[in-house]
Amino acid sequence: MTTAVINNDKMKTFEEVESAVRSYSRSWPTVFERAKGYKLWDVDGKEYIDFFAGAGALNYGHNNTAMQEKMIEYIKEDGILHSLDMGTTPRKAFLEKFRDTILTPRNLDYKIMFPGPTGTNTVESALKIARKVTGRDTVINFTNAFHGMTIGSLSVTGNSFKRHGAGIPLHHTSTMPFDEYVEDQDSIAYIEKFLEDNGSGVALPAAIILETVQGEGGINAARMDWLKKIESICRRWDILLIIDDVQAGCGRTGTFFSFEPAGIKPDVVCLSKSIGGAGLPMAITLIKPEYDQWGPGEHNGTFRGNNLAFLAATEALSFWETDEFEKEINKNASLLRNTIDMIIKKYPELKGEARGRGLMQGIGVHVEDLANEICAEAFKRGLIVETSGAKDEVVKFLPPLIIDEEGLNKGLGILVDSIEHVLSK
Amino acid sequence: MTTAVINNDKMKTFEEVESAVRSYSRSWPTVFERAKGYKLWDVDGKEYIDFFAGAGALNYGHNNTAMQEKMIEYIKEDGILHSLDMGTTPRKAFLEKFRDTILTPRNLDYKIMFPGPTGTNTVESALKIARKVTGRDTVINFTNAFHGMTIGSLSVTGNSFKRHGAGIPLHHTSTMPFDEYVEDQDSIAYIEKFLEDNGSGVALPAAIILETVQGEGGINAARMDWLKKIESICRRWDILLIIDDVQAGCGRTGTFFSFEPAGIKPDVVCLSKSIGGAGLPMAITLIKPEYDQWGPGEHNGTFRGNNLAFLAATEALSFWETDEFEKEINKNASLLRNTIDMIIKKYPELKGEARGRGLMQGIGVHVEDLANEICAEAFKRGLIVETSGAKDEVVKFLPPLIIDEEGLNKGLGILVDSIEHVLSK
Amino acid sequence: MTTAVINNDKMKTFEEVESAVRSYSRSWPTVFERAKGYKLWDVDGKEYIDFFAGAGALNYGHNNTAMQEKMIEYIKEDGILHSLDMGTTPRKAFLEKFRDTILTPRNLDYKIMFPGPTGTNTVESALKIARKVTGRDTVINFTNAFHGMTIGSLSVTGNSFKRHGAGIPLHHTSTMPFDEYVEDQDSIAYIEKFLEDNGSGVALPAAIILETVQGEGGINAARMDWLKKIESICRRWDILLIIDDVQAGCGRTGTFFSFEPAGIKPDVVCLSKSIGGAGLPMAITLIKPEYDQWGPGEHNGTFRGNNLAFLAATEALSFWETDEFEKEINKNASLLRNTIDMIIKKYPELKGEARGRGLMQGIGVHVEDLANEICAEAFKRGLIVETSGAKDEVVKFLPPLIIDEEGLNKGLGILVDSIEHVLSK
Amino acid sequence: MTTAVINNDKMKTFEEVESAVRSYSRSWPTVFERAKGYKLWDVDGKEYIDFFAGAGALNYGHNNTAMQEKMIEYIKEDGILHSLDMGTTPRKAFLEKFRDTILTPRNLDYKIMFPGPTGTNTVESALKIARKVTGRDTVINFTNAFHGMTIGSLSVTGNSFKRHGAGIPLHHTSTMPFDEYVEDQDSIAYIEKFLEDNGSGVALPAAIILETVQGEGGINAARMDWLKKIESICRRWDILLIIDDVQAGCGRTGTFFSFEPAGIKPDVVCLSKSIGGAGLPMAITLIKPEYDQWGPGEHNGTFRGNNLAFLAATEALSFWETDEFEKEINKNASLLRNTIDMIIKKYPELKGEARGRGLMQGIGVHVEDLANEICAEAFKRGLIVETSGAKDEVVKFLPPLIIDEEGLNKGLGILVDSIEHVLSK
Repeated sequence: MTTAVINNDKMKTFEEVESAVRSYSRSWPTVFERAKGYKLWDVDGKEYIDFFAGAGALNYGHNNTAMQEKMIEYIKEDGILHSLDMGTTPRKAFLEKFRDTILTPRNLDYKIMFPGPTGTNTVESALKIARKVTGRDTVINFTNAFHGMTIGSLSVTGNSFKRHGAGIPLHHTSTMPFDEYVEDQDSIAYIEKFLEDNGSGVALPAAIILETVQGEGGINAARMDWLKKIESICRRWDILLIIDDVQAGCGRTGTFFSFEPAGIKPDVVCLSKSIGGAGLPMAITLIKPEYDQWGPGEHNGTFRGNNLAFLAATEALSFWETDEFEKEINKNASLLRNTIDMIIKKYPELKGEARGRGLMQGIGVHVEDLANEICAEAFKRGLIVETSGAKDEVVKFLPPLIIDEEGLNKGLGILVDSIEHVLSK
Repeated sequence: MTTAVINNDKMKTFEEVESAVRSYSRSWPTVFERAKGYKLWDVDGKEYIDFFAGAGALNYGHNNTAMQEKMIEYIKEDGILHSLDMGTTPRKAFLEKFRDTILTPRNLDYKIMFPGPTGTNTVESALKIARKVTGRDTVINFTNAFHGMTIGSLSVTGNSFKRHGAGIPLHHTSTMPFDEYVEDQDSIAYIEKFLEDNGSGVALPAAIILETVQGEGGINAARMDWLKKIESICRRWDILLIIDDVQAGCGRTGTFFSFEPAGIKPDVVCLSKSIGGAGLPMAITLIKPEYDQWGPGEHNGTFRGNNLAFLAATEALSFWETDEFEKEINKNASLLRNTIDMIIKKYPELKGEARGRGLMQGIGVHVEDLANEICAEAFKRGLIVETSGAKDEVVKFLPPLIIDEEGLNKGLGILVDSIEHVLSK
Repeated sequence: MTTAVINNDKMKTFEEVESAVRSYSRSWPTVFERAKGYKLWDVDGKEYIDFFAGAGALNYGHNNTAMQEKMIEYIKEDGILHSLDMGTTPRKAFLEKFRDTILTPRNLDYKIMFPGPTGTNTVESALKIARKVTGRDTVINFTNAFHGMTIGSLSVTGNSFKRHGAGIPLHHTSTMPFDEYVEDQDSIAYIEKFLEDNGSGVALPAAIILETVQGEGGINAARMDWLKKIESICRRWDILLIIDDVQAGCGRTGTFFSFEPAGIKPDVVCLSKSIGGAGLPMAITLIKPEYDQWGPGEHNGTFRGNNLAFLAATEALSFWETDEFEKEINKNASLLRNTIDMIIKKYPELKGEARGRGLMQGIGVHVEDLANEICAEAFKRGLIVETSGAKDEVVKFLPPLIIDEEGLNKGLGILVDSIEHVLSK
Repeated sequence: MTTAVINNDKMKTFEEVESAVRSYSRSWPTVFERAKGYKLWDVDGKEYIDFFAGAGALNYGHNNTAMQEKMIEYIKEDGILHSLDMGTTPRKAFLEKFRDTILTPRNLDYKIMFPGPTGTNTVESALKIARKVTGRDTVINFTNAFHGMTIGSLSVTGNSFKRHGAGIPLHHTSTMPFDEYVEDQDSIAYIEKFLEDNGSGVALPAAIILETVQGEGGINAARMDWLKKIESICRRWDILLIIDDVQAGCGRTGTFFSFEPAGIKPDVVCLSKSIGGAGLPMAITLIKPEYDQWGPGEHNGTFRGNNLAFLAATEALSFWETDEFEKEINKNASLLRNTIDMIIKKYPELKGEARGRGLMQGIGVHVEDLANEICAEAFKRGLIVETSGAKDEVVKFLPPLIIDEEGLNKGLGILVDSIEHVLSK
């Protein structure tokens, strides 16, 4: 992530009062004020197209009107806002609608856990229950995985800068190569051999955890066939399969769960980010009933009862009552892919490579620092887009799923202008 | 925590759809709908006095009217809700008001970090920065500490049920006895000897982390003199002092920070729960500027930019512009302590013992299960109050700080009736 | 390892008094009394040919006459037997002769450390110094590695039964595939990608530790080219290369160090087993002078001064004063390989496969339990030979290096008879 | 340990060829050649009185004539020297004599395990079996404990310099205060509270491991009553009690096992050092039959069959056939204690304090570096004596148990002269 030069006083408070850990306010040095749909405006009234969507937390766009109305009404009526895991009306409504709209139609049977309101909370809960159920401690994770910043989640995360930040060695994991990780090498063959061989040094794991499309790791999309083989490995050795769908879920790849096209049934699913509908903190962990072996309160947390989030989340599920939304996403995904292909072809200097699926796509740019320069230029021109990958080598497109063709084209137009500008320097 | 018998259909959805890990909906088997100040109402219209305050997240009471207005107005104006760590107007306003209202008047100089929106996020960030700054890995924690459920925080938490839930051994900590932990033994002498002696097997730690009043661990309040000695140990051996003020902070003990009466200056302070004002997920980590050695993005998280929480948090800081609020808390604290003393004296069958300070008090009940029975009876009579301690042996009082004398007396009246009922069985 | 039925009283003491952990006395249920060269005799006077050589500790055969004379003379003269790491005449003589006979002629420059008298001691010392020198904690080890039974060495050992025996999770290692581990996959490409990629989750290691021929892991011999590439990986990333030559060293593969044919110069070399000459406990760790960064006594141990072993070890080095011994080993190695090839061809029922090099060879027998049955039958017929590999699937030949053609042929004759007997059942 | 100035060429080989880790050859810069009983001679013919006894490995003195004869005869007859854990005549003889001479008369029932030939091997095996039997991972160890240099043993060792040498964090232990560790604090009260309290953060351990007299840690002798209480804690919570009698056992404190006067029955006992009789590497682990739950070969090692050591060990057990030897030790122990008391009284400048029991005693010298200076001076005057303790603050007396009054007085005379010389500087 590059840091643009900050040439005004707008950012002074952040520079002086906030910790050096701040990051996005360095890449996008302005103060945002309003947002609606796929647009944001800063305090100077400048408009930005959003190809970032809160890092995947705003699949339904900013400030969806129906959600706004629900929230305002609830606040006005003194609806209980904070409730830990007490029973509340919005919690009840969410549970029922999620079951009826998402689980039942997909023939999925999961217990729903509220593990705390963030992605790392759901991952930590998934790892705990897998270890409890199996009595094993090791978890197989993958190269370039990203699962969160708390020590349990960080242990299964690949990025060395983030891992180093732990300040302690991170254990209880065996890292395996993700699909197509090493050229001409078969990651399934490696994993099977390691598990088969009593002398491999790799213990039988409690779980395999993976993202079907690695978002932070560089928009690496596993093939459906590879996912099927991983599920089959899990079944053969009685290993729990955890899908971390925090970023790739909630429709991001074209179906509600990212793993639907593979026809697999994970044992545990982690959802957060867009599950909250409006971008408010919320997360759930889905657990097959036979593995829901928690003791009451064995995992807890103060903010498991964010009722405003439950309201917006319930409203968001309405998008999934018919298949219209999926169709729309996939139409936009095709448009995005076509433009990406065009860009790669038109600008060979990028040494570009298309990545991802659905509205989770990217361009791998194999020239050092170039992806960062393009994103920095795009920001100046009114497009919010960021890089991903261990070397920030991918320009990553995560527009809100509700974006229309006009919005997509406008954003992609700014991108093309930015590329031309950067390449012409 | 006891589980009352559930004799109606209200709870069916939770029982059938939610994970077995649910806890408070077992103790308090109803569906809550509305709340205001120190009162809640369930779907049947039954009123409850709140002596729980969202486990300390609702110090300013439910649905403070000024906060409600601010939130409604912001939503109406399409204010940006979700922003990671981008600059936004509510984030800027919070940073400035926190500096001006809280830090500067107390002569404290800290950088403010947004580590993710929950208590465990701020604790994890505090442990990371302490390890980075010192290059050491061990952290000294205390018996009966509670710092959170993710692996880093759980490692410094004492409760064996919660620790066991990790499914992996928890390391990099040396647990020391809290103030007055073992009768007639001096915990300071013990800690000093372990640090002094090169043969003790206890490595020089990166940090000492503690709660000045242990909330979940049984309302154990450290003496001010003990806190001073701990700070002096930190200074002597160049160890960072981390105060986890997630539950005891934001006025709970009578001052904004719980450590103010001790006159100490921690190197890192963890705040969450009531920092958000209205009970929305939010947390901050305060770090002395010389220790704010993060790289940009070295610790991150999707929900670091909960703007509705920033709005309510900023409004909440208004309570601290004069010393009126502190005075009010301390007046109520005295009333609470007097009643507790009266109860202990009047009901010797409780084998009761007064604990805590400010509006974070409790009665240690040294008869097995009795504390749980009292709380269950109180719920039936319209009082929300829970137990704490490793054996649920403490009846714990955490009323909203904004409670008035009438509310306190009403709640305490229900408590006394509940005790009499339980003892008469 | 199979357990023959014990039908006499000879073994009663061991069964009644010794721990259940005993192992070889189960496979070879007799009481051994005398031994000379490549032969042993039990208490009943039965003679055995030795194709085991103390698991590689008796490369110079049993009771070498020159060594016997030196030891007897030394004891008679009240030579100091036990001396920790004090200066003694035998220690001095060994240091000088090892330098002059082994190091200088091979153009190797190492400091010699006495880490305690066993293989696991030298491995533990090697891991420690690599971690100290680099300031890193992870060590790359390989599938099917065997480095010892203490926790440090066990952490880099592959065998799951042995690892499980630790009773604790074993950490600080990344296990990589050994040469030719997975069919058609390139282990070097795999290792390089993991090291190159900042997102791989595999931290830059302190060291790579390996056996050039894995003895316990199934007589897997790495190719010389693979070893060169591993050395080059170590140089590129500034990783220490540790060769564990405990079993493959001291001439076992045809040269004093097993890595000589690869032309590499490890940073640390572990020697034990036959370094002591007569089978007495002894080990040394060779460390490049620039990495010999120990503080005095930072690693210690009571039995670092086994002077009888030093005497025999010094005498054993005489074998290496000319190249005669190497030639003899290689002649016998050819004979052994030819016979193995003949056996595999003649008995296709074995599904046999030739493994290893020098006098460290084996037959992989891909029929369950067959290798064990062959070895049990061979024992009855007077041949000491054992299996190796994670499933005991390899018949492993480790005759003393001083064996002559007659002895080799006699032993191999018994083996062939045993195979025929077992196959005819 | 101080390093005397080396003023001749004798040490050149060690300085140039041996690793910097060498230690005793720095404190005692000479080359030893011969030894008999309690005396050593160096290459210059200089005589030394031995108050060190191979750090406790030479309780029966150097070169006991009967042992010498047995060893010479065995070598002459081509007795098998190296045998892993195969049955051999000397192994059988040792097992039987140990059972008959040591175990049966003391009414102790243990299985005997050969875990490898060093102290750290027996400790590692003890920790493993305790973890296997209980299914728990934590072990309680004590401040200033010393159990060995491999990672398992080092984890339960207190010395921070040695621990730091591991290069990795050391886990799975809870360090408790040894008897009389902190003035006026009751270590039993602490341990009991930590175990009783579910919120203490200290998990129920697999085992408690301790030395009854801490040798390396400063000659700290636990009181018999404290040992009894520790055993009773183990019984109450079903924790295995491991006594590491590597240094304090084999008669060092006046009885064969150091714990005999306390009347306790440990579950596991670690023996090494003097168990081998003549100072040859040997160790055994004693395990109550009900806990001997090893799988065959679950713990192994090449040098478990040191037959010369078994021969000498069996001969050494003859010392224990009557109670004459114990009486002799105790007589010498009284003489030693009286002289120590006299020294402390006569030289108040030492700020001396008597420590230990049996022939494992010391003088705590509470003046920085003074203990080291005294030992260095004593060496020059012909007495081998070393310091112990985390700050080398104790002059430690470990004469061979077979020393006579004349030898003791001669050694103590040199000590007194050395003290006078050092104090007069």
